[in-house]
Amino acid sequence: MSENNRPDNVVSIRGRNAETDSMSAIDRLQQVTDADMALVNETILSRMQSPVALIPELAGHLISSGGKRLRPMLTLASAKLIGYDGIRHIGLATAVEFIHTATLLHDDVVDESTLRRGKKTANLIWGNQPTVLVGDFLFSRAFELMVKSDSLRVLKILSSASSVITEGEVLQLTTANDLSTTEEKYLEVITAKTAVLFAAACEVAGVVADRSENVISALEAYGRNLGIAFQLIDDAMDYSSKQATMGKNTGDDFREGKITLPVILAYRRGTDEERDFWKRTMQAVRQTDDDLPTALATLQKYGTLSATVDRARHYGEMAKDALAIFDDNSAKTAMVDIVDFCIDRAY
Amino acid sequence: MSENNRPDNVVSIRGRNAETDSMSAIDRLQQVTDADMALVNETILSRMQSPVALIPELAGHLISSGGKRLRPMLTLASAKLIGYDGIRHIGLATAVEFIHTATLLHDDVVDESTLRRGKKTANLIWGNQPTVLVGDFLFSRAFELMVKSDSLRVLKILSSASSVITEGEVLQLTTANDLSTTEEKYLEVITAKTAVLFAAACEVAGVVADRSENVISALEAYGRNLGIAFQLIDDAMDYSSKQATMGKNTGDDFREGKITLPVILAYRRGTDEERDFWKRTMQAVRQTDDDLPTALATLQKYGTLSATVDRARHYGEMAKDALAIFDDNSAKTAMVDIVDFCIDRAY
Repeated sequence: MSENNRPDNVVSIRGRNAETDSMSAIDRLQQVTDADMALVNETILSRMQSPVALIPELAGHLISSGGKRLRPMLTLASAKLIGYDGIRHIGLATAVEFIHTATLLHDDVVDESTLRRGKKTANLIWGNQPTVLVGDFLFSRAFELMVKSDSLRVLKILSSASSVITEGEVLQLTTANDLSTTEEKYLEVITAKTAVLFAAACEVAGVVADRSENVISALEAYGRNLGIAFQLIDDAMDYSSKQATMGKNTGDDFREGKITLPVILAYRRGTDEERDFWKRTMQAVRQTDDDLPTALATLQKYGTLSATVDRARHYGEMAKDALAIFDDNSAKTAMVDIVDFCIDRAY
Repeated sequence: MSENNRPDNVVSIRGRNAETDSMSAIDRLQQVTDADMALVNETILSRMQSPVALIPELAGHLISSGGKRLRPMLTLASAKLIGYDGIRHIGLATAVEFIHTATLLHDDVVDESTLRRGKKTANLIWGNQPTVLVGDFLFSRAFELMVKSDSLRVLKILSSASSVITEGEVLQLTTANDLSTTEEKYLEVITAKTAVLFAAACEVAGVVADRSENVISALEAYGRNLGIAFQLIDDAMDYSSKQATMGKNTGDDFREGKITLPVILAYRRGTDEERDFWKRTMQAVRQTDDDLPTALATLQKYGTLSATVDRARHYGEMAKDALAIFDDNSAKTAMVDIVDFCIDRAY
């Protein structure tokens, strides 16, 4: 992708040094959850073990690949925010990371991906067979960990989240290559496939700590809105050169004909000629090498990447407001700041 | 496959009319569990629903394809055997069937199968993507149903069973094409991938009925031994023309190089020349059209199909003996007879 086609207009509308701010926000969240995260990492390593050597080998390839572990961090930060002093959140944070990892393994098989977090995907190295099965294994292990929480309400939340995630992914498949997908339908997909797990990750901390319904629903709302913002930014970044530094390929969604908000908006705002371009490239998925630069230029022309970031900022504000009922503490500050971090990734 | 190559020697060593006996055994088990199975079928239909239409469409293709529903039937029969008069076994029987169905969907993706129960597989019709995801969906729904049982012990049994199943399947992958696989390793694989779910299906009935540890472990032992016998027969039948009437392809295991007991025994009992044949066909998986008939003739020469059936009968006897502690009733008779039915399928 040439420099000219980079969606740099997104950056120009904000003046701050987002890069530095972002670095410190994730650092702060890591600091707040540091001691607990060490326990989660231990639990991850011990619970992914199996006498069948291929299982920890394949699972470890992805798990040790330098993911941020944002979702378990949210469980730990939520527990800290509300002053929970037990240990049941450790297993739940691990379960949340296992559900997420299982989803990634299956996604990579489903999408035939070759690159994730800058490394070859498990399906590329070991093939689809063990990748599907190790995903199932981690999923089962997540449930074993959840059962250990001894809370039927936690089990209801996380098993329901798992159902909804898969429904969201199937819904996404059925909207693939469909340019008539509305913004509402798109929001439904990303809420199901991404935001529901963020929400559950936060909510379960309130449940094991036995806090009031007010507290539990505030945590749920924080996680849900943050998750929506997170996925909106992910979908904007798929068209950004920043993506390359994250160990993913730029334009994957475009090549697959995955209909995300930047394209939904550009299709709606475009001319007939431009709509024909989107129909050929994303509906019929007949593409040439010149098409991705053209797509990027068109998204830029209609400002749909910055519009997507603006939408994300809207949900980010709702996430922050959900935390307003809590007293100030280091966890709250970190959870507020991580919202901006998730959004500022786009720059 | 020519008539000459049919492993008919298996039949000749038994004198009874197994076909008629078998028919009435499954009929009797169905009769004993009839009223409850109607409720399970209702629950299956309602719990596989989703606003995402592709999910019930794809799941229903397999679920409505005339499987015997043996595993949920075992939960229902176990509940009847011990005189349980509650309703929590209905959801659990459904969960067991969903776990089984999810496993089948993923297996068909993993094995790139084209035919199951005489119908095209879901992966062949809809592709791998939705098939993997709908498997995940049914798996999640199974957990939601288990959570509704309100029994943490049931959740422990079934979530642990799910982990062990996937471990068994990965172990099976790592033993594929490996002719040095021992009978012990093979037993480990089939116990994990098949017998543990049979065991759990029976055991959970005892748990929700709050029966003694003696009763619970008898049910577990019955299910586990029946499951081992069942898989041994499945693996023998993969080399039998009877297979064709079950809506599967004869010789699938051979073509995939899946090392099962009939081949393990033939490899051990064979000449150097015959071992070279197994190495070429099952280890290197270089096969011609003549190889399956040759393989069948070699299995027949060493009587390894009937030896496999004999092994199955051994585990079947243990399954029946596990039921000895229970008073006679219609459920017990049906559960004893279904052991022979599972074994007599081979004829």
